[in-house]
Amino acid sequence: MIYMDNSATSPVKEEVFNAMVPYLKEEFGNPSAFYSLGRSAKKAVETARENVAKLINAETREIIFTSGGTESDNMAIKGIAFKLEDKGKHIITTVIEHPAVLRTCEYLETKGFEVTYLPVKENGILDIEDLKEAIRDDTILISVMHANNEIGTIQPIEEVGGIAKEKGITFHVDAVQSVGKIPVDVKKANIDLLSISSHKLYGPKGVGALFIRKGVRIETLIHGGGQENNLRSGTENVPGIVGFGKAAEIAYNNLDANIEKLQEIRDLLIGEVLDKVPEAYLNGDREERLPNNASFRFAAIEGEGLILRLDAKGINGATGSACSSKNLKASYVLSALGLEDAEIHGSLRLSLGVENSIEDVEVVSDAIADVVGSLRQMSPLWDNEKNESLELDESKFTDVDH
Amino acid sequence: MIYMDNSATSPVKEEVFNAMVPYLKEEFGNPSAFYSLGRSAKKAVETARENVAKLINAETREIIFTSGGTESDNMAIKGIAFKLEDKGKHIITTVIEHPAVLRTCEYLETKGFEVTYLPVKENGILDIEDLKEAIRDDTILISVMHANNEIGTIQPIEEVGGIAKEKGITFHVDAVQSVGKIPVDVKKANIDLLSISSHKLYGPKGVGALFIRKGVRIETLIHGGGQENNLRSGTENVPGIVGFGKAAEIAYNNLDANIEKLQEIRDLLIGEVLDKVPEAYLNGDREERLPNNASFRFAAIEGEGLILRLDAKGINGATGSACSSKNLKASYVLSALGLEDAEIHGSLRLSLGVENSIEDVEVVSDAIADVVGSLRQMSPLWDNEKNESLELDESKFTDVDH
Repeated sequence: MIYMDNSATSPVKEEVFNAMVPYLKEEFGNPSAFYSLGRSAKKAVETARENVAKLINAETREIIFTSGGTESDNMAIKGIAFKLEDKGKHIITTVIEHPAVLRTCEYLETKGFEVTYLPVKENGILDIEDLKEAIRDDTILISVMHANNEIGTIQPIEEVGGIAKEKGITFHVDAVQSVGKIPVDVKKANIDLLSISSHKLYGPKGVGALFIRKGVRIETLIHGGGQENNLRSGTENVPGIVGFGKAAEIAYNNLDANIEKLQEIRDLLIGEVLDKVPEAYLNGDREERLPNNASFRFAAIEGEGLILRLDAKGINGATGSACSSKNLKASYVLSALGLEDAEIHGSLRLSLGVENSIEDVEVVSDAIADVVGSLRQMSPLWDNEKNESLELDESKFTDVDH
Repeated sequence: MIYMDNSATSPVKEEVFNAMVPYLKEEFGNPSAFYSLGRSAKKAVETARENVAKLINAETREIIFTSGGTESDNMAIKGIAFKLEDKGKHIITTVIEHPAVLRTCEYLETKGFEVTYLPVKENGILDIEDLKEAIRDDTILISVMHANNEIGTIQPIEEVGGIAKEKGITFHVDAVQSVGKIPVDVKKANIDLLSISSHKLYGPKGVGALFIRKGVRIETLIHGGGQENNLRSGTENVPGIVGFGKAAEIAYNNLDANIEKLQEIRDLLIGEVLDKVPEAYLNGDREERLPNNASFRFAAIEGEGLILRLDAKGINGATGSACSSKNLKASYVLSALGLEDAEIHGSLRLSLGVENSIEDVEVVSDAIADVVGSLRQMSPLWDNEKNESLELDESKFTDVDH
């Protein structure tokens, strides 16, 4: 199998698994317990916290463990909104955020908040001028993702952070896709809150973290026994947290080497696919993108058919993001780039992982060329004689939203 | 080591660990992904859902996976409160609920809700007449725990459910301590929402479930990609859910045998401790209690010292609940029974597990007698000559709340 869907989830590294095992077996104590078994669990959680903090240049006490990136986003955005609602009820975000941010913002709109959804340019990156213009006296929060989950484009978070700081507005970053893949520095980018997920960086599912800058106050999302400095109650997921910490440590130690390796594979993959497949395009900015992301679109085919046929060949990729892949709506991220529904439906996201090798490129690019070719032979949108797409008639696509 | 703190957390069973391993290794797919690796993860989650549903006599689709019991409690109580606030803003619960319920209710009080906290009788059980009297026209929710986490007393949830149904009020049960330990039947008790935790029943930490009766609508706590029937977003904790499902299956298959075994050990333990230690008392009702709970109090000593000395002898127990054990406040649960702070401070909760044996009883009861004896020799509250407690002067205890 060649797995190229690491932005959906990544395999747990062997060292991560091994680190977790004792905490699933003999070291099963509750960190809140007084006795030695509890204290050793507590110590393991604190070691993990140090490793996660280090990866984003935060202080250890600024890391709160959660059940994952989605909870972290909810905790940050609702937490600031309800804490600061007396100060203002305006939030700024972008149209291409993850659903964890977008659905949370829409929920807040039902509670009397106003949300400005900034557009992005054709390359998937926001225009800083749009941000500046959107800021109002009652703006309490700016939430901008670091790297997009579908097209991998990287937002200028340092610039955004500078503006937020200057205006005294709280700044949240959904960094689920970037942490462990590219450098993330919460101090340099003046970030107040930052969401992280373990299973995107070769740690286990079911655990994540929220960085909360010292001094930033939020309303609690999950109340109870007072764990995590009273900010996130519930018995700590000790084995998950330990695995997350180990994954963070490994990511920190290998960051530069992984970037170099993945960029090389990615660049070769993009080159080969665009070369072998006619009417193939890359989605999102060519340079400002994650080292592991290659998001394509192919004229005249449906991405779902592509995914299933690649699966049959032992290759795993995605259409858009896994989070909404069972929903056949056209990707809102690709729509935001100005693409038509018909173009979007032929999309394929390949997200590389450290397990991939340069040898995978030929296998994958050949398979894509093969599958796209055979899908086009059956496509009413492809002219097989001329080997090019037919003129698009948008009316054909009005019924896909089922 | 003799572990008797299973109400804080329980060790993962070998079969549970073995069931989880493939999902931490090769079967690491995202259940939302289209391809085969994603579909097999999805299938594993659904099998676990069936097993959890079966354990409480629910329909499979009525089970929503969460990150644990605390999140389930928050999701249920806030979810109903914000969904039904136009209908009424009054909630009824009890003074001895878990902090996940109490802190959530207190939070709702800051949002304009009114909460009635029902007292309990000396035996730790609520008076149904108090409940009937507390019901108002604007009561939207009754939340009563099944079994108490500190003293193990079992509430008459079938009676409560009958009243809630008759009055048309939504009924939530925190069953974190009871599921897998005693029979729980959501249909028989007319329960609308019920919280479960995996790590209390020999499953992994970081996963739990909320039963939501078909037709009951709640406001979502965690928004995002729409997982769990759009009620709980975030990539599913597949290994955790699989482990939880296996633990539920094992609990279901062994429920009667475990009850019989644990009751026998518990009864012997209670007898031996009360026999060997002068001025020792059992907290909570003698009959209506979990088969695995023995909550004691000993005159003239501090529970913390007891815990640490027992730990040194390789025996793990707790003062009150682990959730608040680092907080030296007197247990609010024991206070609710009408006990004085000085009495409460000498408390010890032993919560048995399936790993315990009848042979543990002598070791543990001897150790308790020994440790309590030596603590009393140093206690200003104990008359060593007469071998009985001195008259209590409450003014000595005004400074313990630090």
